[in-house]
Amino acid sequence: MKVVCMRCGKEREGYELRCKRCGGPFKVDIEDLSFSKNLRENFPYVKNWISLGEWNTPMIKGNNLFFKLDFLNPTGSYKDRGSTTLISYLAQNGIKKISEDSSGNAGASIAAYGAVAGMDVSVFVPSSSRGTKLKQIESYGAKVVKVNGSREDVASAAENSGYYYASHVLQPYFRDGIRSLAYEIGISMNFESDFSVYLPTSAGTLLLGVYEGFMHLVSQGLMKDMPRLVSVQTEQVMPLCAKVNHLEYKPPERVTSIADALVSTSPFLLNEMESVIRKYGDCIVVNDNEIIDAWKDLARKGLLVEYSSATTLAGYYKDKAEKSILILTGSGLKSIQ
Amino acid sequence: MKVVCMRCGKEREGYELRCKRCGGPFKVDIEDLSFSKNLRENFPYVKNWISLGEWNTPMIKGNNLFFKLDFLNPTGSYKDRGSTTLISYLAQNGIKKISEDSSGNAGASIAAYGAVAGMDVSVFVPSSSRGTKLKQIESYGAKVVKVNGSREDVASAAENSGYYYASHVLQPYFRDGIRSLAYEIGISMNFESDFSVYLPTSAGTLLLGVYEGFMHLVSQGLMKDMPRLVSVQTEQVMPLCAKVNHLEYKPPERVTSIADALVSTSPFLLNEMESVIRKYGDCIVVNDNEIIDAWKDLARKGLLVEYSSATTLAGYYKDKAEKSILILTGSGLKSIQ
Repeated sequence: MKVVCMRCGKEREGYELRCKRCGGPFKVDIEDLSFSKNLRENFPYVKNWISLGEWNTPMIKGNNLFFKLDFLNPTGSYKDRGSTTLISYLAQNGIKKISEDSSGNAGASIAAYGAVAGMDVSVFVPSSSRGTKLKQIESYGAKVVKVNGSREDVASAAENSGYYYASHVLQPYFRDGIRSLAYEIGISMNFESDFSVYLPTSAGTLLLGVYEGFMHLVSQGLMKDMPRLVSVQTEQVMPLCAKVNHLEYKPPERVTSIADALVSTSPFLLNEMESVIRKYGDCIVVNDNEIIDAWKDLARKGLLVEYSSATTLAGYYKDKAEKSILILTGSGLKSIQ
Repeated sequence: MKVVCMRCGKEREGYELRCKRCGGPFKVDIEDLSFSKNLRENFPYVKNWISLGEWNTPMIKGNNLFFKLDFLNPTGSYKDRGSTTLISYLAQNGIKKISEDSSGNAGASIAAYGAVAGMDVSVFVPSSSRGTKLKQIESYGAKVVKVNGSREDVASAAENSGYYYASHVLQPYFRDGIRSLAYEIGISMNFESDFSVYLPTSAGTLLLGVYEGFMHLVSQGLMKDMPRLVSVQTEQVMPLCAKVNHLEYKPPERVTSIADALVSTSPFLLNEMESVIRKYGDCIVVNDNEIIDAWKDLARKGLLVEYSSATTLAGYYKDKAEKSILILTGSGLKSIQ
């Protein structure tokens, strides 16, 4: 299976993270792949699954508002969908020491799957990091390396650590695992496409992964159309909404929003996200008060998620598409202390 | 479907919690029930499911050691298996205000499912209670009532609150929902019975619920024998092990073990547990150091559970049955702050 640059189409040569010709991001090319309802078969590059029982999360169906409980993945977030494919691929290629930069769900997920694979995992985090997610990362046995400076400095330290940089943003085999989410939704909805999917959007792995999965179902003739994809961002972190909706946007020096998993003020995949949303959906901005209200409403329905996931309901309240699916991405147990 | 006293067989008259003749606990009588692989059909008294997507948790299979990830139920513990059946039953019978006594997983689970049913939920807890589980209970919108005195005083306050006492220990429709766990294991193991199941054991709902489920599969001819059931208890809370293994046991004034979900020093269902373990299994005592070591080993396998769930691995280390399933009952995200 080929891995190609999303911008110029050049094939990836080896383990490089950016296209050697144009600097663009890579994706797994699934054009010739036949869809299988045995979901694992849609990832033929994985020969030996490093698994914690991820995928097949519950979907709760109301009248026209459905909830996909992706926080019930093994480490408490949808990131496990991508960690299983990435870490499986790296492990079968003999990679033994990896680095990642994330003090949040991605760091915890990579730490857990790396542990299952017997890897030496170093997670680079901003020096100000604290909280349950950091303790979760440490619990899995990963080494936490605190870095002074900006978010970019942390990423750069992880990339130049000497370990293999298992970036959840740049590694195509991470984003590719998110396709599984689109497949599960497709199956749950009997491959109809008359619905909107609300996605918290930060670095873009969720949006673009889900997009690739639905596009696969459409290209295989299983779904007639692409469902409407609705990205939800916060007032503080809204680069995609600003671009799509021609809004003014000045990123804050430090993100203080209660939706603390949404921090990518200048995402590497911004252009790719923009073209998807322009063609297939919308971008909606919500503020902290709206997020808190939505979070409470979810909790009062028995759904304890992190604030970043409650953005989906806040976005839905402003938008009210007829038939809607909210992706509940992260567990509230990580943030209620 | 009949509900009968587990001791004298008398049928339950209405909503009473203990047998009016002998004071014994009730169970749902499933003697005449045909097993269905559509698991919900094995609970025909539920007409309208109050559900959060519980059951069908992942099982990770190693060589001879399997892990049942029951902490991936919606509120982060196996208790959701019983809350869905109990709350569904109460809701369809018009019960609108309920009480429960638990500052832990059962309280959180009842609070969540009560919220879904639109019930007014009051959770009675010892006045010293704190921590993530209490915040979780409050997040679901339940009223938390702090009670001074012993654990029994808290239970008594809940029972005499004027609300319907939805006790996870006494209500047969709670314990009965745990049968689903045995069915899932049975299906995963292709209805073989040559394995041991390790269960953290406190009030006895897990052990007795799982027992009823396996017994059903055996009585229906689907399984040849009962699997071996291994209860694991802590040095501080080991009334069952003491009884079965003829050990001396003096309950502590206050349980301080790191396995803080295992607190029933004098369980109401002790006699029922004893007869099951005498016939079909064993009881193993573990101490806090053994639990901490086991907890670390689980986390290093990517399985972040609460200490009370790690007792299963600690028990397995002492026992080492050939083919074994550990029930990982509660999420570690509730206890790593």
